[in-house]
Amino acid sequence: MARTTFEEISAADFFYRNREIAGFTNPSRAIFAAVRELIENSLDAAETLKIPPDIYVRLSFADEAGLETGVYTLRVEDNGIGILPRHIPSAFGQVLYGSKYKPKQQRGTFGLGGKMAILYGQITTHQPARIISSTGMSKIYAYKLRIDIQRNRPLILDRKVLINKERWRGTIVQFSLEGDYGRAMPKILEYFKQTAMVNPYANLTFVDPKGRLYKFTRVTEEMPDPPRETLPHPYGVDVELLQRLIQVTPFRSMLEFMKNHFHRVGEITANKFLKFSNISPSKNPKKLSHGEVVRLMRMLKKFGEFLPPDASCLSPLGEELLRAGISKELKPEFVAVRQRRPSAYAGHPFIVEAAVAYGGEIPRRGSFLIHRFANRIPLLYDEASDVSTIVMNNMNWRRYKVTPDMPIVIAVHICSTKIPYKTVGKEFIADRPEVRREIANGLREVARRLQRFLTRKEHAHTEQKRLDIFTRYLPKIAKFSTQLAGKDKSPDIKRLLRSVKRFGT
Amino acid sequence: MARTTFEEISAADFFYRNREIAGFTNPSRAIFAAVRELIENSLDAAETLKIPPDIYVRLSFADEAGLETGVYTLRVEDNGIGILPRHIPSAFGQVLYGSKYKPKQQRGTFGLGGKMAILYGQITTHQPARIISSTGMSKIYAYKLRIDIQRNRPLILDRKVLINKERWRGTIVQFSLEGDYGRAMPKILEYFKQTAMVNPYANLTFVDPKGRLYKFTRVTEEMPDPPRETLPHPYGVDVELLQRLIQVTPFRSMLEFMKNHFHRVGEITANKFLKFSNISPSKNPKKLSHGEVVRLMRMLKKFGEFLPPDASCLSPLGEELLRAGISKELKPEFVAVRQRRPSAYAGHPFIVEAAVAYGGEIPRRGSFLIHRFANRIPLLYDEASDVSTIVMNNMNWRRYKVTPDMPIVIAVHICSTKIPYKTVGKEFIADRPEVRREIANGLREVARRLQRFLTRKEHAHTEQKRLDIFTRYLPKIAKFSTQLAGKDKSPDIKRLLRSVKRFGT
Repeated sequence: MARTTFEEISAADFFYRNREIAGFTNPSRAIFAAVRELIENSLDAAETLKIPPDIYVRLSFADEAGLETGVYTLRVEDNGIGILPRHIPSAFGQVLYGSKYKPKQQRGTFGLGGKMAILYGQITTHQPARIISSTGMSKIYAYKLRIDIQRNRPLILDRKVLINKERWRGTIVQFSLEGDYGRAMPKILEYFKQTAMVNPYANLTFVDPKGRLYKFTRVTEEMPDPPRETLPHPYGVDVELLQRLIQVTPFRSMLEFMKNHFHRVGEITANKFLKFSNISPSKNPKKLSHGEVVRLMRMLKKFGEFLPPDASCLSPLGEELLRAGISKELKPEFVAVRQRRPSAYAGHPFIVEAAVAYGGEIPRRGSFLIHRFANRIPLLYDEASDVSTIVMNNMNWRRYKVTPDMPIVIAVHICSTKIPYKTVGKEFIADRPEVRREIANGLREVARRLQRFLTRKEHAHTEQKRLDIFTRYLPKIAKFSTQLAGKDKSPDIKRLLRSVKRFGT
Repeated sequence: MARTTFEEISAADFFYRNREIAGFTNPSRAIFAAVRELIENSLDAAETLKIPPDIYVRLSFADEAGLETGVYTLRVEDNGIGILPRHIPSAFGQVLYGSKYKPKQQRGTFGLGGKMAILYGQITTHQPARIISSTGMSKIYAYKLRIDIQRNRPLILDRKVLINKERWRGTIVQFSLEGDYGRAMPKILEYFKQTAMVNPYANLTFVDPKGRLYKFTRVTEEMPDPPRETLPHPYGVDVELLQRLIQVTPFRSMLEFMKNHFHRVGEITANKFLKFSNISPSKNPKKLSHGEVVRLMRMLKKFGEFLPPDASCLSPLGEELLRAGISKELKPEFVAVRQRRPSAYAGHPFIVEAAVAYGGEIPRRGSFLIHRFANRIPLLYDEASDVSTIVMNNMNWRRYKVTPDMPIVIAVHICSTKIPYKTVGKEFIADRPEVRREIANGLREVARRLQRFLTRKEHAHTEQKRLDIFTRYLPKIAKFSTQLAGKDKSPDIKRLLRSVKRFGT
């Protein structure tokens, strides 16, 4: 008889079997994903300290592998916060172990990318990974490790402690992986360029396998405030979260419970809410029955008077930095940027920043080019399904006198404590109505400004032509009239020319 | 000083925090995902035994929840293989525990969907799930359980053993969840319709929250052969897999190791390969060094003489069944179906089936409508990024005299031991060149046949017009000529009419 056999697999094993869903689809995507995941970790590590990031990436050819693939060694060095030695092995050798599992704006969200890169390197080259890190104290720790995929545990092969005379702080990750750099190159370079665009305070250095050096130098030392961790907003909670909070809370009354565990709930709101939902403020949260917890969850969603999530925990780029980044990398003739007011979906605050750049060194393509960013990282794959692309495609650009044959780049940056990615590989963002609305409003605003610029430009152009005609014919008319009147001296036509000038061109 | 805090989370916790990536994006998508995941498990469970599936799905309204959402109870009953009692709790209450972790064509691939549905129900309603199952032996087992998300373990609340007098076999899953049925309804009905299309041997019954009954009755009892589990193909292996095989192999020589653990490797191929890679056939695989294992992996990929994956482990629908399914659900005037020959990507065999349906009850839409299927399930979301959509959009349909204003439905079915999904929610398929090529060839073939049909149709039309003219004027001419010749009886023009007929219309 047919029988079904069951087995349990570890989280590492799950992602090993399904590496495509984490972005490691093929040798070209894998090398791209490895580079980006490590850079994003490094940027996060520097930003935590509000230090302008200095990131050095070197990809070197180590060996032939398949017909189109090679073995490469990837090394990424940063000046970030560093990792305490007791966390190093698991932070790099254990899937679902990490520092990103909290409501905070971060590039990493799944706590998975770095480990996936190392795991992919291991299964294609069987080389161990090397991690060197220091928090800037007296010692530097160097580990050589491998991942035990079936058990999802790090295997430490070697560990060294070095004296940190110069008080170096940061992390170095180095490992080998099989990949197709030739095919990945354009995307990797584009990734660096766009990362520089939205991180204009970062120094990025990339040495590619041919020894070519790419340097993206910061244009400012000024950094946005680092994002802060936040409490869960009442609109976003579910029963599981409530149970967990009840389990760990030190507070013995519902009033204190509400005030201390939720975002934007103070004394007044807490009291109002408890009255609304008919719960006694002095009730001990640990005494709530299952049914009461479910009711509490529904009441939290129903109560209309919670303040919207506060976006002060977010760290958008700001219009100035976004403009600086775009101007630096695209060198356009005109840029309009717009930061929208904070909004929220399912209890998660988010801010949309939209920009449109026109002319200058931007080439004409016959269609709009969109740059998508989320928590200051560029998204380069699966554009067609992304919410920003959908909004852009549905927008009536003709209304703004903007046509696809113009040299235009559109940029959308979304920052949030929780980016609604559709894939673990962070390729694209889900089409949430709240997010869609903000993007649409942002794009409309910058489109209007572009329209004004284009109108002015056109007027200026028409005006110039008009003035050219006056300038050409007025002297002749003046000369002719002078002769006709039998006078010697032509009148001064400069004043006349000034009077027909309509705009200050 | 800023500090980074690390934590370890369970697999259940990971998917609880990131339910969007598994398809549970919002209340509407969640209810759709829950229905589809359970149906797909049921279809797999019946197919394992090659029994025509009988699946009963009931969704009933239980309570108000939010403004647009309600609490629903979902019940799915099947006549599948059933689950042994010792596996029931983990199969429904533990993430990354399941029967789908093997190289075999199955609807489920991540072993995640059913648990995610139950987990989602739990966090939105806090109700336990009920599972009733029997393998058709003397007893029926009924469980009431919950998932301990933080520990990723099932919590058994109740367990009953019943006597199975009627030797019932199958599984019943019932649980509550919050959802937005109003918004999900069109997608759910479309899902049933398309599922019926590619599973024409299944009976599907759906009772919706308003008590409306939807019945999709089988048109055939004939079922394709059930898919079989297969060995890994040498082109698809990595170091991790080799290490695992070496760990478990009972064979003491490389020759036996190669012959017994790989797909399509027999004595001759094994010997050839070992000679090619300069490995002694008598070498003990357990004695291979790390370096030798890596070398073995590279040699496996380099050796050009392995036979391509054998698709006999796959179970495509077949042209007849696909035609029957499409004819039944779409009632078109014309259908062309085409099963491509087996192909492979990264060692995974796959088969593409393509179809185009024209006219009849298919409405005109102004653009092509595509139905995408993978291992006999319809894919309904994120169409824009799917490989089939990309191929369809890039195809030069005008070459086949086909235009978007025609009433046309295109269908693509991919079956494989490993569908290259891009998302855990199984929304769309990655753009693999090998897959893309097969789809393109399949679509071209059916497009050519459609073209022939359209040409014939046009000719028939022209011919009819031509015949109409002859039929109208020949009798008149005959009559006139008869009179002119002074005869009484007109000649028989029927023979004449037959002779001008060009095609058998």
